[in-house]
Amino acid sequence: MERKKVVAGVDVGGTNTIIGFVDRDGNILKEDRIKTNHYPVFEEFVAALYEKIDNITKGSEKELELIGIGIGAPMGNINKGTIEYPADLPWKGIMPLADILGRYTKLPVLVTNDANAAAVGEMVYGGAKGMKDFVVITLGTGLGSGFVVDGKLVYGHDGFAGEIGHTSIRPGESNRDCGCGKKGCIETYASATGLKRTLLKVMADSIEPSHLRKYSFDELDAKIIHDAALNGDHIAIGAFEHTGKMLGFKLADVVAHTNPEAIFLFGGLALAKDLIFEPTKRYMEQNLLSIYRGKVKLLESKLSTQNAAVLGASSLIWSTREQQ
Amino acid sequence: MERKKVVAGVDVGGTNTIIGFVDRDGNILKEDRIKTNHYPVFEEFVAALYEKIDNITKGSEKELELIGIGIGAPMGNINKGTIEYPADLPWKGIMPLADILGRYTKLPVLVTNDANAAAVGEMVYGGAKGMKDFVVITLGTGLGSGFVVDGKLVYGHDGFAGEIGHTSIRPGESNRDCGCGKKGCIETYASATGLKRTLLKVMADSIEPSHLRKYSFDELDAKIIHDAALNGDHIAIGAFEHTGKMLGFKLADVVAHTNPEAIFLFGGLALAKDLIFEPTKRYMEQNLLSIYRGKVKLLESKLSTQNAAVLGASSLIWSTREQQ
Repeated sequence: MERKKVVAGVDVGGTNTIIGFVDRDGNILKEDRIKTNHYPVFEEFVAALYEKIDNITKGSEKELELIGIGIGAPMGNINKGTIEYPADLPWKGIMPLADILGRYTKLPVLVTNDANAAAVGEMVYGGAKGMKDFVVITLGTGLGSGFVVDGKLVYGHDGFAGEIGHTSIRPGESNRDCGCGKKGCIETYASATGLKRTLLKVMADSIEPSHLRKYSFDELDAKIIHDAALNGDHIAIGAFEHTGKMLGFKLADVVAHTNPEAIFLFGGLALAKDLIFEPTKRYMEQNLLSIYRGKVKLLESKLSTQNAAVLGASSLIWSTREQQ
Repeated sequence: MERKKVVAGVDVGGTNTIIGFVDRDGNILKEDRIKTNHYPVFEEFVAALYEKIDNITKGSEKELELIGIGIGAPMGNINKGTIEYPADLPWKGIMPLADILGRYTKLPVLVTNDANAAAVGEMVYGGAKGMKDFVVITLGTGLGSGFVVDGKLVYGHDGFAGEIGHTSIRPGESNRDCGCGKKGCIETYASATGLKRTLLKVMADSIEPSHLRKYSFDELDAKIIHDAALNGDHIAIGAFEHTGKMLGFKLADVVAHTNPEAIFLFGGLALAKDLIFEPTKRYMEQNLLSIYRGKVKLLESKLSTQNAAVLGASSLIWSTREQQ
């Protein structure tokens, strides 16, 4: 009997690194994990990662044939197979992940960042099947973006295309600090953290009563603000409105760059559905040049938030095989 | 003797339409023109255009073999071969240029806008030879842009990719009107017209003496402001500084989208060299995320301003043949 082909999708996170063996239809057939922060030495992390992959491979070799390893990691560089200066991982500098893993295996290894992986995942398993030109925006703690042009992920000359989270919303005079060292980056507005910051601003300007006034900044999260907005809290609704204003403004820029068929919103903030989609779409349309108006779809990602990172990482390998 | 292969490059302008027969090295071997605005009926314009091309072909058929027609036009749509709702041409609505020309000839016909044509021209004949990822910004009366990703012009889903001239510099509160109906578009700052508008703003805010105070808005042009700046006029220098600030800010956005190797500036305003390049580069670097800093070249176009439109249009055909 022919064995089923699978790809190892690896999601490198600050706490856990999750490994899933994924088939072409996006089913995760095997899954395991290692503790990222147990390995302060990068080489030891890679050795442990390979050992896990090798164990799963050996345990399932009667049914499954592993054909490649796709890895999503913060600051993953697809051109070089590296992780470069990640803020939230235990290692410093440039880590040649694909090269080190290549000492253990001859299988193809591809590395990219989370948002690029999400974009390819959307194309291979999700709502962008059959689309040639689209963009995925990930709205988590920060804002990531992955661009697909003519059926291919845009890498860019240095492998770092799609970092629009760190474009600013206006020149010079912005006053919202970003963790990257700049000011006014769109992710300081359009992200779970950005929503919290905006809520405080709206609360400061308003005299409306709100039970959110009982929460500290640290206690607040996107879910609490979401629930309050659903209950008619004007301050929470105002925070979503302003978040949509900023995001819609930026998405109009995205459209003017690559004229996609659709923009997919993915991640925690996208779960707020109409609360975020409605104002975002409205302000995007308002900011579009007339030739683009009414044409670009704003869609929910069809990847489940839970598995998306592993699926996205695995999709890198499927997508590359199918383009050859 | 084998005949030399040439492409007809056609530059459709509001007043004149210029036709050049161009070889693979970018030499314009034959040239002629028709008056665009003598043909209020679009079909008659196309008939006259074809007649000119046919005349040149017949007059040179011993030496030259015409292999295709590339056309650059405002609002040219490369997916559909149309010109759509152009502001500065005598026709209204959607003109199916490639289709109508196809009634006369079986040669391949490609249509795109001026900035996309300039981008392909830069790749085929100019400073982007051998580059896979770059952007061309045209700074004329307005601001146009053409994106090349992985060696190919980005068309987008509707054929209108690369209209960043109409992205705004900030959300909502801008006060500079744009001809497109929106406010705060980057082309209201970074273009020959934008420079004039900024000069007036700087002049209004300043008490510095300047001989430019003797010029009306209508009398001013980029050349006069350029000459004044070279002579140390503080108001003119201030206008270039602010233009560079706005353009540099927007180019940092461009980098975050597609991570190009280089950005080429083309057109009248780019002729001001250091006056525009220095502040633009400085503000671009200031607005870049650290992973991009010091890596993206800001270069002068190597297409001569005079022939660029015809060369760019012709390059569409060479570039398409060579990718097949």
